[in-house]
Amino acid sequence: MSAHFADRLAAAIADRECPVCLGLDPRFAWLPRCLRESAGRAGSPSEPDPRAAARAIGEFGRALIDGLADVVPACKFQIAFYEALGADGIRTLEETVARAKAKGLIVISDAKRGDIESTAEAYARAHLGATSPDADAWTGLDADALTVSPFPGMDTLAPYLAYCRTAGKGLFVLVKTSNPGSADFQDLDVCGEPLYQHIARKLQPLAERYRGHSGLSSIGAVVGATYPEHARRVRQVLPDSFFLVPGIGPQGGTAEAAAAAFRDDGRGALVSASRAVLYAFRDEPYATRFGEDGFVKASREAVLNLAQQVRHALRGRP
Amino acid sequence: MSAHFADRLAAAIADRECPVCLGLDPRFAWLPRCLRESAGRAGSPSEPDPRAAARAIGEFGRALIDGLADVVPACKFQIAFYEALGADGIRTLEETVARAKAKGLIVISDAKRGDIESTAEAYARAHLGATSPDADAWTGLDADALTVSPFPGMDTLAPYLAYCRTAGKGLFVLVKTSNPGSADFQDLDVCGEPLYQHIARKLQPLAERYRGHSGLSSIGAVVGATYPEHARRVRQVLPDSFFLVPGIGPQGGTAEAAAAAFRDDGRGALVSASRAVLYAFRDEPYATRFGEDGFVKASREAVLNLAQQVRHALRGRP
Repeated sequence: MSAHFADRLAAAIADRECPVCLGLDPRFAWLPRCLRESAGRAGSPSEPDPRAAARAIGEFGRALIDGLADVVPACKFQIAFYEALGADGIRTLEETVARAKAKGLIVISDAKRGDIESTAEAYARAHLGATSPDADAWTGLDADALTVSPFPGMDTLAPYLAYCRTAGKGLFVLVKTSNPGSADFQDLDVCGEPLYQHIARKLQPLAERYRGHSGLSSIGAVVGATYPEHARRVRQVLPDSFFLVPGIGPQGGTAEAAAAAFRDDGRGALVSASRAVLYAFRDEPYATRFGEDGFVKASREAVLNLAQQVRHALRGRP
Repeated sequence: MSAHFADRLAAAIADRECPVCLGLDPRFAWLPRCLRESAGRAGSPSEPDPRAAARAIGEFGRALIDGLADVVPACKFQIAFYEALGADGIRTLEETVARAKAKGLIVISDAKRGDIESTAEAYARAHLGATSPDADAWTGLDADALTVSPFPGMDTLAPYLAYCRTAGKGLFVLVKTSNPGSADFQDLDVCGEPLYQHIARKLQPLAERYRGHSGLSSIGAVVGATYPEHARRVRQVLPDSFFLVPGIGPQGGTAEAAAAAFRDDGRGALVSASRAVLYAFRDEPYATRFGEDGFVKASREAVLNLAQQVRHALRGRP
């Protein structure tokens, strides 16, 4: 069985001194021109067929993984953008995940699945499963961790926990999402506290049970960088959980806000940078320095800068 | 643009006098022996490779669609069981959805997706999208409706609503799921009412805006057949929404309980029967009468019986 997820993630972050992961949200229309044009051969450059688009997205992901694997600890795949290309997209996802694992990156499947237990079993197998002697278990994506929704209830987490227990996998449960509308339901007052905090409280006994040698737990939480006050409250309830922190950059989260999700010892969180890193070649100062063809170097520089900002923010905390 | 989703669904149910849809949750290990054995040729009969398993699941779905298309109004695809077979499973899903549409069935993608708006756009495109002149829009699954989670907030529904507005698509928002743990968060008291009812209340203005000529709305709700009292409360808040009602049969819901989700005029709900219909050939009285090879006839008989039970329960309501 693989080592404990939180232990592996903590070691990878410490090893690279980088608490920021590469978030792969590949949108075809935003790819560097060179990749879009080569995909265009199969159709029109502006609207290739899904197979050509999936190929371009695959090249993009592979190039970034190869170019950033020595500086980032993990890669978070936003499944929606692969799913949008149908079976071709999922094939590309499988190949890109395999590449990330071969390069030593920890893989997080950001699928935010949430369904009743018998269905959750199939989702757990799809995302966390590997080859298995069980007649009903296929080769799955074999990601190291998965994001899931708590909305259907605590019983629906059981199939994922089985993989945490037996295969060293991890879970990031949605607690407070990064979007403006997250207040609609997550901030509602229940039993004298907001729902997101109540969810964290329900997760706490689980988080304690899945703590590793690092002292950190494989039962983590998703907490948006756009809500530092909320992150502090969740941290009080879940002192040992890994927090996955999206929303930095275009969504409005800053390095200082993201730092609120970390423990006092500067560990226990992983900031996910997607658009700000993936498409760095489109923005200054990277656009002028690297151009579209230098998109990998632009992303590498952007993620290194972001990691430095987060480290700086962590040192500057009161 | 296609006709209004709720109008189409109401007409299909009235036409076939069948408020029950075929729920496709294909598990390889539960397939009729004939299908499992032919898949086994590519690997071992108990554990074929994903491609062979996907092929078997495809044959199963096609046979049921062909055999039941004249009696059921719609087919609900539980995406998890296709996703669990990776890219091969998604290819099979695409082919089976196309078959269902060609046979005149309304297709519901039961994916329960829920993510922030920029990601929800990709999920909306994946499940509800069709060929489009937009450079960033591929041929999607082109389902008629999708199940989604409200947990990330009301703003995250916008991308799906765009398809309801422009392409006659529908939405079923999770309100009260059928599992025992659904009480954990969905039943919590917020603002003097349970969360599930509060969610329904937030959906109400949307539901009103998307009402068709039938008087029914394309903004629907998922309400488990296992909670008839809850269904009645949701119905009070959402008088015109279509309710998608899972949980009948093995999960404990009865035809009488499912009937609680319907409007007083006997319309406005679609009961989804999955395990009870798909695997009818395994259970009596169907097993003896039809055997494994007669699995299509067994499912047809089971769904007709279930529809009759629901119609009977509707007539018997106080």
